[in-house]
Amino acid sequence: MAVNLPTFADIEAAAARIAPFAFKTPLVENADLNRELGARVLLKLETLQRTGSFKFRGALNRIGKIPPADRTKGVVAFSSGNHAQGVAAAAALFDVPALIVMPKDAPRTKLEGTRAYGAEIVFYDRDKDDREAIATALCAERGSTLVRPFDDPDIVAGQGTVGLEIAQDAALRGVALDAVLAPCSGGGLIGGIALAFSVMSPSTRILSVEPENYDGMRRSLAAGARTAAPGGAPSIADGLMAPIPGEIPFALAKLHLADALAVSDLELMKTVAYAAQTLKLLVESSGAAGLAALISGKYAARGKTVAVVLTGANGDFSMIVEACAQNR
Amino acid sequence: MAVNLPTFADIEAAAARIAPFAFKTPLVENADLNRELGARVLLKLETLQRTGSFKFRGALNRIGKIPPADRTKGVVAFSSGNHAQGVAAAAALFDVPALIVMPKDAPRTKLEGTRAYGAEIVFYDRDKDDREAIATALCAERGSTLVRPFDDPDIVAGQGTVGLEIAQDAALRGVALDAVLAPCSGGGLIGGIALAFSVMSPSTRILSVEPENYDGMRRSLAAGARTAAPGGAPSIADGLMAPIPGEIPFALAKLHLADALAVSDLELMKTVAYAAQTLKLLVESSGAAGLAALISGKYAARGKTVAVVLTGANGDFSMIVEACAQNR
Repeated sequence: MAVNLPTFADIEAAAARIAPFAFKTPLVENADLNRELGARVLLKLETLQRTGSFKFRGALNRIGKIPPADRTKGVVAFSSGNHAQGVAAAAALFDVPALIVMPKDAPRTKLEGTRAYGAEIVFYDRDKDDREAIATALCAERGSTLVRPFDDPDIVAGQGTVGLEIAQDAALRGVALDAVLAPCSGGGLIGGIALAFSVMSPSTRILSVEPENYDGMRRSLAAGARTAAPGGAPSIADGLMAPIPGEIPFALAKLHLADALAVSDLELMKTVAYAAQTLKLLVESSGAAGLAALISGKYAARGKTVAVVLTGANGDFSMIVEACAQNR
Repeated sequence: MAVNLPTFADIEAAAARIAPFAFKTPLVENADLNRELGARVLLKLETLQRTGSFKFRGALNRIGKIPPADRTKGVVAFSSGNHAQGVAAAAALFDVPALIVMPKDAPRTKLEGTRAYGAEIVFYDRDKDDREAIATALCAERGSTLVRPFDDPDIVAGQGTVGLEIAQDAALRGVALDAVLAPCSGGGLIGGIALAFSVMSPSTRILSVEPENYDGMRRSLAAGARTAAPGGAPSIADGLMAPIPGEIPFALAKLHLADALAVSDLELMKTVAYAAQTLKLLVESSGAAGLAALISGKYAARGKTVAVVLTGANGDFSMIVEACAQNR
């Protein structure tokens, strides 16, 4: 099936569309991290993006493109959390009603965040229900627009602005990036970043990082076709549990991704603790996957200059506390 | 007594001297904070500075000016923590031996941090010993250079680079700042910031924020002469317990400070929790005083554009956890 892939020009257009609302997040370094890895690591802090994650970018770009006549009919999204908050906040900015289909066991911080942005929430059961079917039915009923979490060219173009900003910031500092690593679930972010770098800096290697057992992108690239990961016990990376990459992200990944890695829950926990204790940065477990690949040594960073996206900071704070206690 | 005041040119020279080693820290915004205060707040993240606080800047500037012949004789500093780490790390960069006189009850994070940078530590008792006398004696014995925490023109010029960066970043964004707020202990930082803004943007009001009972700057400005605060029970802001501002900082404050505020321990705790939960930022209690003045309403921010320095993030993590638990 042919998919409608976004282009670099779509990312540039997305950047212009979101500029009045989204923050250009900082790209920071830490001397201890650099020394310990024998590398230069630039951390892109999407943890400080509006709504606490990069998901706001894609949602804003998608909802911003809904024709005015359709806006009053609202948007519907299904999400374990950060996409929910991104859609809720973006919809509020355009005065569009938002209805979010969320798992009953979503982290409290993410539930509260979504409600605080004024969205209506419909719960589903991860084990029993098909969230996409629920969302599609709600859209049909209300005439609402479905805002998919990743398999949508406007979402991918929106998330691609993260890559655009990294490339622009690195160029401003005269830094040549050997690689960019980012967490991957359905692949909207990594697909967008890979697309941005394919034009901005084609020699930079782009790598996705998934939780073990939820490594659909890794399996799909190895197989040459979209392949589901086994799943199983829930990962602590609740935002990275999509079993299979989206069609659009996978098509971009096949074209532009250098490699796909996976990290364990223990590696994620250690990284969350390291981020708080040493880097003085709050990051949720899902948001730490890229950095976990460096800290665990699964990506050999020594001698390289690497950018890593810390994608969000909406995890339950108690999890960070527990991670720090275990890391003492 | 006439004091040798630093000039704006000294801040510019300090900026050039520290540029190869110190980070230009980000100046970020948070949409929730802006909305809740009805203001625009730019947060200067010295929490992400090398050594986890702004103190690295002053130490680097001071130690960088020690003549090569004196460097082998080392430096001595007395500090409750962040200045210790700043001096230890700066000394290590110049291959200068560092000896730090620290209180026995300094937070563990700060002790460990100081040791990790390779400094030798000598302990003193806050209640019994005169730390300055101990440090002075050690200097006399070894021929070392004393690196004072705030009452030194090179330290003040180094900390002033925080103000210079804020002014430059604001100008780049086309933002006119109504005010800048920063925590104050001996006054090195606020004195340096005030000096930087007196040239870069004289209409911006500069305000110091101290813990109640350790509000030496506020009392000194009210009295028109250096006046000690009553002290008493230790503040949770362990880094802001200097009873009286330094001569140089006070001289600059008299010339350039618009006002001096004080906040309670409870206000500091709430701010530390708010920073973690809402802003997704780790900040130690001492580093949160400026922001606490906004959040508590002691500074009326409504309708204003304000920069606030978050000065450090080396507090014991358990304190942040406790603050968050109390704020639920």
